[in-house]
Amino acid sequence: MYDCIILGTGVAGISAALTLKALKRDFLLVGNKGLSGKVASAEKIKNYPGLPEVSGGAFRDALSAQLAGEGIAVTEGRATGIYDAEGGFFVACGQEVYEARTIILATGVETVKPIVGEKEFVGRGVSYCATCDGFLYRGKVIAVVCASKEEEHEAELLADYAAKVYLFALYKDCGVEGKNIEKIVGIPKRIKGEGKVSSVEYSGGEIEVDGVFMLKDAACDSLYSALEVKEGAVVADRNMATNVAGIFAAGDCTGRPYQYAKAAGEGNVAAHSVNAWLNRK
Amino acid sequence: MYDCIILGTGVAGISAALTLKALKRDFLLVGNKGLSGKVASAEKIKNYPGLPEVSGGAFRDALSAQLAGEGIAVTEGRATGIYDAEGGFFVACGQEVYEARTIILATGVETVKPIVGEKEFVGRGVSYCATCDGFLYRGKVIAVVCASKEEEHEAELLADYAAKVYLFALYKDCGVEGKNIEKIVGIPKRIKGEGKVSSVEYSGGEIEVDGVFMLKDAACDSLYSALEVKEGAVVADRNMATNVAGIFAAGDCTGRPYQYAKAAGEGNVAAHSVNAWLNRK
Repeated sequence: MYDCIILGTGVAGISAALTLKALKRDFLLVGNKGLSGKVASAEKIKNYPGLPEVSGGAFRDALSAQLAGEGIAVTEGRATGIYDAEGGFFVACGQEVYEARTIILATGVETVKPIVGEKEFVGRGVSYCATCDGFLYRGKVIAVVCASKEEEHEAELLADYAAKVYLFALYKDCGVEGKNIEKIVGIPKRIKGEGKVSSVEYSGGEIEVDGVFMLKDAACDSLYSALEVKEGAVVADRNMATNVAGIFAAGDCTGRPYQYAKAAGEGNVAAHSVNAWLNRK
Repeated sequence: MYDCIILGTGVAGISAALTLKALKRDFLLVGNKGLSGKVASAEKIKNYPGLPEVSGGAFRDALSAQLAGEGIAVTEGRATGIYDAEGGFFVACGQEVYEARTIILATGVETVKPIVGEKEFVGRGVSYCATCDGFLYRGKVIAVVCASKEEEHEAELLADYAAKVYLFALYKDCGVEGKNIEKIVGIPKRIKGEGKVSSVEYSGGEIEVDGVFMLKDAACDSLYSALEVKEGAVVADRNMATNVAGIFAAGDCTGRPYQYAKAAGEGNVAAHSVNAWLNRK
């Protein structure tokens, strides 16, 4: 059982990881090895103290080098649920299940709202994690809803498994290419099926599929139902503690301002609070 | 009248300044041109996201360059009091008085507790600011209590004015030198006088002086008496608002953890809150 699982590899999650490392805690950092696509896409960041006029790409590279320098590995994955365990929590990331005494939620803001049927079919054809569930669709037909460039490598991974991929890119300049990939022009409206997914209805028609991958940032409140959320943001106190004992939150998922400095600060505070919590137990 | 006065040039104050600049607000940043001595004295900072294993000195240089790059000047000074004004506040920095609609307190933690008589004689021989009040002691005899290396340049400035300086350095390796400076080995205990300062009692005896300069970080609660302070820390909410409408706080003065990332984050949030506050008015 880990001391802590940090969910998210944006600035908040990385800040928490660096500080837990300094505090000599045993933790897992779950997210994308490419870190946050949102960070990398920033053109110029002018108000992050210590890094004058850094580009998003350079900032991400600096964070990546810093993690490597501290010997902190990123565990590729996307949390699909948090459940109570004896003395802590289980975190499901598709097929993988990890266990920890505390959680730091640093999953960012949900950029894409759920579509009709999405929540209903989770685990019955709807998945959020290519690396976790992709192999289940070997030789099958799937729809992939890609929210941003950040998820493109996951979409490509899915095309390696599936016989056919219908791709919905919800952003401009989609760079995903592949012989078995058909880009759909349109917006997904509804996931349909009986017992399990059988088709996706979209603005331009309907396609038959065996599964649907929603590649996007998770909504925190869908990870743990008892978590207090207000206007889409996880409610946290000044110690970054949520209403659930042992679950802390940091970064954009706790609300505005959506800023790197805020995320760095909150990740730091959350890590210190986790440490204090573990010391008290 | 400025939109905001930021008190303090540590990481929190600088973060607030960079963000207020980005928000195109008209503000004054009051502190030391050398920024924070506490930052510069850190040997190696490992958990500040984006700057792997940076030394305190390099971090300070980066912050300094960033301020210069954004065209943000530091106004040398040390706040001695905040008072209500029509639609805002007056901030007294010794002889200077500035006026602003909002305040961000980023004055750090008070590292040296007040000595007996200190508060009683403020303005009657006790001063906190060499650049503000030094000229008042031209040709006189003064005691200077120096809390850290950060204040050494102020101590030297005072020696340029005064005929004689008795120097209490409350830290190791004091680098202040001067013909008219006598370093006292001992701890100041009590400031005495009738109506105005006449002597300082210390662990090794008593010396007659015309004034006493206490060169140290200010306690936030002594700046504005109605400010809510708990266990030495300014009480702030998640928006970094204090109990006083229009006064915000950020960094070490709001409590633990005393970390650069936290300070950067809180300075950022305080600046956004100031902006929102000004927009509402």
